[in-house]
Amino acid sequence: MSEPDRPAAPPAGNEPAVRIRLDLAYDGTEFSGWAAQPGLRTVEGELRRGLGTILRTEPPRLVVGGRTDAGVHARGSVVHTDVDAAAWESLPGRSDRAPAQAALSRLAGVLPPDIVVRRATVVSTDFDARFSALRRRYSYRLCDRPALADPLRRRDTVIVPRPLDCEAMNTAADMLCGLHDFAAFCRPREGATTIRTLEGFSWQRPTEGVLEGTVVADAFCHSMVRALVGAVVAIGQGRQEPGWAAAVLAARRRDPAVMVMPAHGLCLEEIIYPPTHELGARATQARAVRELP
Amino acid sequence: MSEPDRPAAPPAGNEPAVRIRLDLAYDGTEFSGWAAQPGLRTVEGELRRGLGTILRTEPPRLVVGGRTDAGVHARGSVVHTDVDAAAWESLPGRSDRAPAQAALSRLAGVLPPDIVVRRATVVSTDFDARFSALRRRYSYRLCDRPALADPLRRRDTVIVPRPLDCEAMNTAADMLCGLHDFAAFCRPREGATTIRTLEGFSWQRPTEGVLEGTVVADAFCHSMVRALVGAVVAIGQGRQEPGWAAAVLAARRRDPAVMVMPAHGLCLEEIIYPPTHELGARATQARAVRELP
Repeated sequence: MSEPDRPAAPPAGNEPAVRIRLDLAYDGTEFSGWAAQPGLRTVEGELRRGLGTILRTEPPRLVVGGRTDAGVHARGSVVHTDVDAAAWESLPGRSDRAPAQAALSRLAGVLPPDIVVRRATVVSTDFDARFSALRRRYSYRLCDRPALADPLRRRDTVIVPRPLDCEAMNTAADMLCGLHDFAAFCRPREGATTIRTLEGFSWQRPTEGVLEGTVVADAFCHSMVRALVGAVVAIGQGRQEPGWAAAVLAARRRDPAVMVMPAHGLCLEEIIYPPTHELGARATQARAVRELP
Repeated sequence: MSEPDRPAAPPAGNEPAVRIRLDLAYDGTEFSGWAAQPGLRTVEGELRRGLGTILRTEPPRLVVGGRTDAGVHARGSVVHTDVDAAAWESLPGRSDRAPAQAALSRLAGVLPPDIVVRRATVVSTDFDARFSALRRRYSYRLCDRPALADPLRRRDTVIVPRPLDCEAMNTAADMLCGLHDFAAFCRPREGATTIRTLEGFSWQRPTEGVLEGTVVADAFCHSMVRALVGAVVAIGQGRQEPGWAAAVLAARRRDPAVMVMPAHGLCLEEIIYPPTHELGARATQARAVRELP
């Protein structure tokens, strides 16, 4: 979920490279998060391995638009990767398909069932999955009537014991929107800003006993969505007044009364990018450190 | 899914008994179906064991309104069971809760996470979970755009490789409705009728790439829903004309061209019962053998 300041992956060696954008979905339940870690099953690790298999190259480096923690899901994650051009062009073999089509069906054959690559696109090197992104949209799924819990959704739904006041949660969520220092809701990291623009935060009831939150921001710092949800859940439960979340925000320091909600209710739904001709300018802007006016 | 002709469970021994209705949901993925079988993990087996644990009695016998095969899910299954009245009354311990409330929260504590008992109700012995039922409603979930498959729904969604024609499927499904001999879509069983009233069968697209079927009948014989879905999917794929399913029905014998669809797309959504004062009459009627007029 955080976006640490590591550089974009360089083009692969001295061979001509082609930049590929992959749109993907995964069930985070059995992954130790996005980022590759030795000895652990991660989405990045599985995807790199799958790409290496279909391209018959070393697993290529990936840049992702939204890193997710262990247990967090995605329906709209985006990565870019620079792959060997000759390996890419030879993907369709003797078929008349485009390499991107061939990549998609071959990846489906080698990836585990909890990762689906939904689209593969050749993009210009102006496109950077992380720095070109304008905003990210997450969802958070709660069940507040345990007796109505759907066992088929237990992997992506967090159960809370008593009914939540959706209206109070929306009032509180709305007060958090805008350009703010979200230090109160972020795990602090040396030298990194916690200033973000929360562009939208709202709750609705799609069915009885279920509450779905939507959170949109230009970027999120680590554990930010889960802490924002925890703050408004305390209000929905009547443990805090609707104004409390905004007061916590204004204090700009972590409040132990804010619960960081479990990972499995969270899903990265979408990463939004500008039109192609604005990509270069956007990446330069996103690399600049955010400041409050 | 079938309802074999076994008798309703008798009241427990000579002790005074109370009849309990339980409404339940389960993720069928890791069960060998509903019906208890030695050495296999089944919904009935787990639920009986859970009831025995909270009541501190032998696991009581259960009568279910809709038996499901291995891998089939439920959101609205219903069982009845006759339990020892003294054990039931002592459930709340020293609390001031009703036994049904206490049963619900204790069951939540002892059942595995893939079974949720949603409601526990004391009912009259006129209520029979199987024979009082007026109709059953099942859903079947398909994804016909594999690249859009949601890995979080892979346990309850069957992927078909090419786009389906929803309109043609609805035309075909509609032609199957009514009182018919469904022998063409049933696994034959000695001495059992295959005459049923298919009250509704329709398809809709809740989101891009997803098709959800709804099937309602007074009762279903074994594998009937999955065979009905297989017949209309062949039409949706353009492999058969829309009139083909009705022709298969009229032939009244199993057609090997009808594919019995995979279990995991199927979910028992609801069992519908008459108002309390009509329960006795309904059970008598349901026990009678159906005949075509």
